[in-house]
Amino acid sequence: MSIQLNSHVRWHEHRVTSQMRSAAMSQKGLCVWFTGLSGAGKSTLANAMDIELHQAGKRTYLLDGDNLRHGLCRDLGMSEADRTENIRRVGEVAKLMVDAGLIVLCAFISPYQRDREQVRTLFGAEQFIEVYVSTPLTVCEQRDAKGLYRKVRQGLLSGFTGVDSPYEAPLAPEFSIDTSSESLIDAVQRMLDFCENLDR
Amino acid sequence: MSIQLNSHVRWHEHRVTSQMRSAAMSQKGLCVWFTGLSGAGKSTLANAMDIELHQAGKRTYLLDGDNLRHGLCRDLGMSEADRTENIRRVGEVAKLMVDAGLIVLCAFISPYQRDREQVRTLFGAEQFIEVYVSTPLTVCEQRDAKGLYRKVRQGLLSGFTGVDSPYEAPLAPEFSIDTSSESLIDAVQRMLDFCENLDR
Repeated sequence: MSIQLNSHVRWHEHRVTSQMRSAAMSQKGLCVWFTGLSGAGKSTLANAMDIELHQAGKRTYLLDGDNLRHGLCRDLGMSEADRTENIRRVGEVAKLMVDAGLIVLCAFISPYQRDREQVRTLFGAEQFIEVYVSTPLTVCEQRDAKGLYRKVRQGLLSGFTGVDSPYEAPLAPEFSIDTSSESLIDAVQRMLDFCENLDR
Repeated sequence: MSIQLNSHVRWHEHRVTSQMRSAAMSQKGLCVWFTGLSGAGKSTLANAMDIELHQAGKRTYLLDGDNLRHGLCRDLGMSEADRTENIRRVGEVAKLMVDAGLIVLCAFISPYQRDREQVRTLFGAEQFIEVYVSTPLTVCEQRDAKGLYRKVRQGLLSGFTGVDSPYEAPLAPEFSIDTSSESLIDAVQRMLDFCENLDR
C-alpha cells in the first residue's frame, strides 16, 4: 500500500460508519443464522452459502463451532448457562462483523428460543435471517456423521440436544430447510434467491 | 445480488480459506494493537488510522471500549481477572476478523504484558503490530479528556491504570508513539509508512 495522509479530515470528530464500510464493499452487512439438531446439515448449508457468496464477489465469513469453541468460547462447557453464553458471544461477534460490512453465516445448534431471540435483538430488521434446518431427529441420527448419537445411545454422552436435552424449534424463522426432503443444491439456490430479494 | 449456483463445487470438501478472502479484498489481514495509559491517544490514533486506511480503499475495523464493553464484554468488570478476560476476547475477535481479511485496529489500555503476549500468539509473525502509545502519565493526567484522573485523585475511582494499578510497558513493541512530542499527523503518516513496508 502507498497512502498519503488526507490531513483535512478532522480525525477527532469523525468515525468510519457502518454505512461507509458497506458502501466500500458494495454490499450490506447481514447475519444468516442456521439453527437445528446435530447432523441436520447446518454447517454444510452455511459452508455452501459461504462458497457461493464468495464466488459471487461477496465479502463473507463463517462462524461455527470449529473457529469459536477452541478460541473465543474455549472457557465454556455444555451446561445450559454456558450454551447461552456461547450463543450470546457468537451473536456479539456477528454484530461486529455485520457492522464491518460482512455477510456472516453462523451455524450453531442454538437450542434455546430465548437465546436466538436475544441475538436477533442485536440486529436491524433486515440484517438478520433465521434459518431453521428442520431435518428430523431420526434422519440426523441415521447420518450420525460424527458418531455422537451412537455415543449418546451407549450412555457415553449426556445432555445431548434432541435426545436428553431440549431443542426449541423456531416459531417464525425467515427460512426453513429439511435436508431429508430437499437437495442441498435446491436449498442453497432457494436461500440465495431469498437473499437476493432481500437486497436493501 | 443475483447469484447462480456453481454446482460443480464440491461443497463438502472445501472451505473458503483465509488466503481466498484476502485475495478477494486485495489485502492481507492485519491486527494493529494500541496499548497505553488512559488519555495517551490510543483511540485517537486508531481512529485516524481507520479513517486514512478506509479512504485508501482498505477494508478495516476498529475495536475499542466503545463497541466491546457494552456488547461482547459487558459481563466483565475491571478486576485483574476480568481485564485479562477482556483482552483475551478482544484478541480472539481480532483473530477472526483478520482471518476474514480485515485490517483490525484495536485500542485498549491492556496494561498487562502477559495478556498482550497471549494475544500476539494468536497471529502469524507479520499479522500483528504492537503500538506502544507512550505518552507520559503527567501529560495524560493534564489532558484528562474524560475527567477520570480527577476522579481518581478525589478518591472516587480506584484501581486506575498508571495511578494505583500497574501499567506494564511493552518491552519490544513494533512501534512507539509519544503524542506529547509527536504530532498526530506525523505519527499517523509514520504508521502508514510502516504498514506499507510491511506489505507482505
